[in-house]
Amino acid sequence: MNKRMNIGLLGFGTVGTGVLQIIQDHQDKLVHQLGCGVDVKKILVSDIEKKRDVNVAPEQLTLDPQEILDDPEIDVVVEVMGGIDDARSYIRHALENNKHVVTANKDLMALHGSELLQLADKQNCDLFYEASVAGGIPILRTLVEGLASDRITKMMGIVNGTTNYILTKMSKEGRMYDEVLKEAQALGYAEADPTADVEGLDAARKISILGTLGFSMNLDLNDVSVKGITDVTSADLHYCDQLGYTMKLVGIANRCGDKVEVSVQPALVPHEHPLASVDDEYNAVYVYGEAVGETMFYGAGAGQLPTATAVVSDLVEVLKNKRLGVNGNSVVIPQFDKKLKTDEEIYSKYFLRIHAKDIPGTFASLTSLFNEYGVSLEKILQVPLSEGTLAEIIVVTHAVSKKNYDTVLEKLKSAGVVVEVKSSYRVEGEMKK
Amino acid sequence: MNKRMNIGLLGFGTVGTGVLQIIQDHQDKLVHQLGCGVDVKKILVSDIEKKRDVNVAPEQLTLDPQEILDDPEIDVVVEVMGGIDDARSYIRHALENNKHVVTANKDLMALHGSELLQLADKQNCDLFYEASVAGGIPILRTLVEGLASDRITKMMGIVNGTTNYILTKMSKEGRMYDEVLKEAQALGYAEADPTADVEGLDAARKISILGTLGFSMNLDLNDVSVKGITDVTSADLHYCDQLGYTMKLVGIANRCGDKVEVSVQPALVPHEHPLASVDDEYNAVYVYGEAVGETMFYGAGAGQLPTATAVVSDLVEVLKNKRLGVNGNSVVIPQFDKKLKTDEEIYSKYFLRIHAKDIPGTFASLTSLFNEYGVSLEKILQVPLSEGTLAEIIVVTHAVSKKNYDTVLEKLKSAGVVVEVKSSYRVEGEMKK
Repeated sequence: MNKRMNIGLLGFGTVGTGVLQIIQDHQDKLVHQLGCGVDVKKILVSDIEKKRDVNVAPEQLTLDPQEILDDPEIDVVVEVMGGIDDARSYIRHALENNKHVVTANKDLMALHGSELLQLADKQNCDLFYEASVAGGIPILRTLVEGLASDRITKMMGIVNGTTNYILTKMSKEGRMYDEVLKEAQALGYAEADPTADVEGLDAARKISILGTLGFSMNLDLNDVSVKGITDVTSADLHYCDQLGYTMKLVGIANRCGDKVEVSVQPALVPHEHPLASVDDEYNAVYVYGEAVGETMFYGAGAGQLPTATAVVSDLVEVLKNKRLGVNGNSVVIPQFDKKLKTDEEIYSKYFLRIHAKDIPGTFASLTSLFNEYGVSLEKILQVPLSEGTLAEIIVVTHAVSKKNYDTVLEKLKSAGVVVEVKSSYRVEGEMKK
Repeated sequence: MNKRMNIGLLGFGTVGTGVLQIIQDHQDKLVHQLGCGVDVKKILVSDIEKKRDVNVAPEQLTLDPQEILDDPEIDVVVEVMGGIDDARSYIRHALENNKHVVTANKDLMALHGSELLQLADKQNCDLFYEASVAGGIPILRTLVEGLASDRITKMMGIVNGTTNYILTKMSKEGRMYDEVLKEAQALGYAEADPTADVEGLDAARKISILGTLGFSMNLDLNDVSVKGITDVTSADLHYCDQLGYTMKLVGIANRCGDKVEVSVQPALVPHEHPLASVDDEYNAVYVYGEAVGETMFYGAGAGQLPTATAVVSDLVEVLKNKRLGVNGNSVVIPQFDKKLKTDEEIYSKYFLRIHAKDIPGTFASLTSLFNEYGVSLEKILQVPLSEGTLAEIIVVTHAVSKKNYDTVLEKLKSAGVVVEVKSSYRVEGEMKK
């Protein structure tokens, strides 16, 4: 039996506490898997005195990151402090000292993942970040290993629990956005400042990480077109349900040939699509591979234990690799040049809801505008509004280029018969291809 | 750049052909992942002359397994021939010659997995079998790695595409079993002799493999209590839908403390459970871990490319291990003694449908019988039958021990007011755990 292995923790919030707890509770299992025990030697905290919910000795805590980053006895650094600048510099420092790194930091990996992976590769170190995407779902591992011999052409993910909770409650209970948001905040599903969630930024970070790995192409946050859920209304949800769709905030990464498109937006999926029944705060990532076809991975996207479990799974992998002397071999560096689709090349179906004058000829003048830009319609729903002079018109288009669709949207705004363009959403997942 | 690596294929049916095709089509990707190319040196076939759909040279084919098993140049043997006795003896022979093995053979792994894994471990060889459970879903890898630091307490799987297709069509289209079975046979989703599928045996093999791995306990096929779908009627499906459930043929592996229960049966899951929306020929495995909570993995369960992809993913793993010199480390041997729950310890809710005399006092005499054995009821539905003198009574019980429930079932058969016990199913997945 070899010596025990030492790790250092950067950060001791919810996730850090969970990681320590799991390591303490599972020593037997760790010894079985690794052939040696694991000790958390040092933990970087911002307050030494603070009372902790977990069994920790005062000498395990430090205010000084160097005590971890420069300690030759520490084999692996686990970064669960969050934030960008300090985390980045500590991880760089750790890698430069030939320490392996496990991180749960999606903000950091979405912004500087490529740089850090390059450094890890150069240093022959492991850098794992499973917990950064969807805590309870081992999706990164699956993309790297399970689908290794396939070619992935599409990923669609419900990767933000807060917005999925809000949309689920709005859809199923007919409630208003503001009210459900408040409830989500009270339940701890949404932050006091929910901007990053509801504006789609959190989901954008995750889909950029997924796209980078799945397509082996260095996609960053700026490549993701982002739209959040703050404008979604009960009326939209009502009509989308009526037409057979469920609205979800989805991150989409599409590949066609060697060109890709990455976006986040509320989109409509058919009721029978596997993503449609992913409810409440749950996450799921749907992957289409040329060989395996449709697959979907479902689970808790966040939470202390799911996230800490993902971190510890990565840690076990790193430690196994270390005992085998094969660290650094699993670092995956994007191998293809980035090529983004133009708006002419992004094809999609759309749901469009407008208020128009309820007079003869309205629909004819709309369809002639659609026709002009090659937009053909698959579904049409027209209902008179209670006001009497207005009609609610909802159409679902056939697939059309984003360029043409956006042009039509613009033209509609100034079309005489249109009073207001109420909403417009992508429709996804219709072909079970 | 090192020498190329050689593999031998045992069997050249649908899956074997797919494996060869993928290896031929993905040489670039394989070189990138492995640092060397991969050649299929020899393929064991039963007919050398047969015309093949894939590019293969006559000298690659052989009728003699020794040409593969005893060839020192062959590093890995891929068994895709199926069957038990020959496959077992060839795999043993390969392992004894220190060759690594990838197999897609669930029948073999369910019956002799433990023996073969022990041998692989002794020989320091890899033995991977991802394709044996649910082709397109990397579930075994996930159990071993992704959930490595969690404790799994429940697995529920829709692991047979044929029966899922039949139940989906019966449920959604109100069609009869025989008619849908014929259609499934015509479409190639069901075999000419569908017994292994419809009687639940195929699912039993898979859940025994999942249970063995997830609980690290040597469960074999005889430990699985099995019931198929041949008795399921349209009326059952109608009432289960009406009460809010979807019927699925599920393999269940439950752990409570150190005792387990493994079974396959048509069971009812609530409409909102993630398994309920797994339709048609798709498979899904739902896993509950103490830390990560609910996860589910969805995808194609069979088919040439999904299965071949799983085989090639395993192969890539073996070849990576070989280049790293770490083969045999990933072989997982059950570490706990097998302890099966008794009927007193298996708790479940049940759906029960009976025909009873439509006379005053019927329900009272039923409930007094239920009461006697501690069976309490959660849902009750009583409708008069068109015959006039009979009532259709459907109840859903609260959780009760299998022992008590079975006793009540027996007593019901001889109770004066009961004309016939029509059907009885487990109800699962009600608590979200």
